[in-house]
Amino acid sequence: MTLRRRALLAGGAAAGLGAVAACSATPSSPEGERPAVVPASFTDIGTGIVPFHGPRQAGVTTEPPAHAAFLSFTLSKGTDRAALGRMLRLLTDDAARLTRGEPALGDTEAELAVHPSRLTVTFGFGPGLYRAAGLKSPVTDLPPFTVDRLEDRWNGGDLLLQICADDALTVTHAQRMLIKDARPFGAIRWVQRGFRRSAGVHPAGFTQRNVLGQLDGTANPRDAAMDTAVWNPDGSTSLVVRRIRAEIETWDLLSVGDKENAVGRRMGSGAPLSGTAEFDEPDFTKLDDTGLPVMPDFSHVARARQTDPRLKILRRPYNYDEAPDAQGRPDSGLVFAAYQADIDRQFLPIQRRLAEKDLLNEWTTPIGSAVFAIPPGCAEGGWIGEPVLA
Amino acid sequence: MTLRRRALLAGGAAAGLGAVAACSATPSSPEGERPAVVPASFTDIGTGIVPFHGPRQAGVTTEPPAHAAFLSFTLSKGTDRAALGRMLRLLTDDAARLTRGEPALGDTEAELAVHPSRLTVTFGFGPGLYRAAGLKSPVTDLPPFTVDRLEDRWNGGDLLLQICADDALTVTHAQRMLIKDARPFGAIRWVQRGFRRSAGVHPAGFTQRNVLGQLDGTANPRDAAMDTAVWNPDGSTSLVVRRIRAEIETWDLLSVGDKENAVGRRMGSGAPLSGTAEFDEPDFTKLDDTGLPVMPDFSHVARARQTDPRLKILRRPYNYDEAPDAQGRPDSGLVFAAYQADIDRQFLPIQRRLAEKDLLNEWTTPIGSAVFAIPPGCAEGGWIGEPVLA
Repeated sequence: MTLRRRALLAGGAAAGLGAVAACSATPSSPEGERPAVVPASFTDIGTGIVPFHGPRQAGVTTEPPAHAAFLSFTLSKGTDRAALGRMLRLLTDDAARLTRGEPALGDTEAELAVHPSRLTVTFGFGPGLYRAAGLKSPVTDLPPFTVDRLEDRWNGGDLLLQICADDALTVTHAQRMLIKDARPFGAIRWVQRGFRRSAGVHPAGFTQRNVLGQLDGTANPRDAAMDTAVWNPDGSTSLVVRRIRAEIETWDLLSVGDKENAVGRRMGSGAPLSGTAEFDEPDFTKLDDTGLPVMPDFSHVARARQTDPRLKILRRPYNYDEAPDAQGRPDSGLVFAAYQADIDRQFLPIQRRLAEKDLLNEWTTPIGSAVFAIPPGCAEGGWIGEPVLA
Repeated sequence: MTLRRRALLAGGAAAGLGAVAACSATPSSPEGERPAVVPASFTDIGTGIVPFHGPRQAGVTTEPPAHAAFLSFTLSKGTDRAALGRMLRLLTDDAARLTRGEPALGDTEAELAVHPSRLTVTFGFGPGLYRAAGLKSPVTDLPPFTVDRLEDRWNGGDLLLQICADDALTVTHAQRMLIKDARPFGAIRWVQRGFRRSAGVHPAGFTQRNVLGQLDGTANPRDAAMDTAVWNPDGSTSLVVRRIRAEIETWDLLSVGDKENAVGRRMGSGAPLSGTAEFDEPDFTKLDDTGLPVMPDFSHVARARQTDPRLKILRRPYNYDEAPDAQGRPDSGLVFAAYQADIDRQFLPIQRRLAEKDLLNEWTTPIGSAVFAIPPGCAEGGWIGEPVLA
């Protein structure tokens, strides 16, 4: 299979010249300032293209589309630095074509490739990938937290592919083609599918609700702060993927007031309990009639708070909802994806405070955890990981 | 739990008066001619409402939205005719509210209920429900077919809820609320989630591709023929749900020509091999240069063909795509839902011909099967199943 695929890739080089010419019309930005590509009209939902090439990978600060698949691979024993290069050339080529709405080379369901629907394919390198290449990893596994109930089937991975699009069949097809080309080099460790509101339900940039009904992502860095919080100067960043089970059975027993105290925000508006609108700054000095703080110290907002914009993290969560058990108990929660320039400086302090005393811990259980370096993007003709592995 | 929910339902009766008044503005059609409710613009994706009340249930001839959950329940031992009435009053009330974009009574995540996104909830009664009620069932389990590789975890069920919407979180929320109210009366037997193309990707009525890349549903009854093929005079119909695994690993090895011979249609256009456009009538007399029929006798189209419009079935399939195994082999296929006035007269003859000699059987494996009577719809104040069970 590897040989056949590689022959196809070689054979496609000539055809590639035409593709490059056609592709120069694709909006791409050498400065790395990706426009917020969101469907502006109804028909854009199928046709929207997020440029794949650029100094930073797409799928990070890109407005998240409705559907995602997170694929984690364990590299095979023989996959050394040279093999990694072969694999990443192949997968980069697949991703570049599929995100343009073109079939991958040797695409076996080519007719499914024509609706890009803002498809992005984002590559992440786990510590094991650097080990396999004989290199020092820029990321290390998170330390254990007392709240963790990690299951190994949702942990770790050497290679991550984050596939996002506004159409679930587009995700399915891209996933299929990428897996076919990756599997000579490794085995699938886990796959996590997730969803957000469909395109059109909310305007771009709207903070969405998660399966707990909570507005999730209000504290994300905004505007200029996004740049320093998320990106390193070389175009790299890092990703933490946590699978967080929602304890919906017990959450459902709470009153709205109890939920709001746990979160520190109104369920309806998302406003901090000290304010009236979603983006009001929480006021931790404000006291209620009984002299107690209006914003409880144990609330999620109080614990997760980070006022230094350079130290914020970009939450890019998706919901999951697997089949409930026979008694109707849901298997639902978040594929919590957080992007930040530096995990140690940004993610870890927040996570430590949350693990210590976040009331929301009662209704959320981390059951999976993985970290990945997100290498810079690449230009046409290059491949993801080239500066590290070539 | 039952008591609490029933108290809520009783308490809601007064509030219900207001709801009825507000609801009279909802477009509902006593003639049962549901308009093809499809999003006409971008913002309709979140706000689109399919009327719940009417002489026929919604979710059958309704243009299928992007996401679906099929829930099958096994009734508890104590669930007799009177209990069924209590359960169906409760679930009908939930469905009527949720499909209007309103929280269910006692909705524990009320803020998730505000985007109906063309939500439909369709009720199906399996043979066991009629047995529990001491009544004769209008449907019986399908006979075994040689191609079947049924797994009990995907078979049968006493009560079916088909939940469809253009937004996956809307489906998740409706599923959660309906399960909470159904579970005092039964256990979940299976849940099958599925997807089609997102709203906006295709115009209304467009035949969509399935995970095999095949245009699926070209032969559906159209226009006036839909009425006689699907509906009985009393507003009832029937549903066959088959879980059909796609053998994508071997399907991927076929050439486009081989796929087209198996299906009997062009992969690109969906045209029969004897024609040039999707809706051309297949010509089984046409011969190729070697004197062989252009439309192979063993092709799916040849075997599934039904020229009498009264005997056609309405295919309303959704794709599924569960996590692949470690070797990357997909767990993907169709939640094949077929509606017809009479299973014995319409579905069975087609299925028998397919089981006997459909080349596509090589790449599709039925792993689940269930049949349900779809009782008529109900008017405001009534409940689904009332004419049968009251």
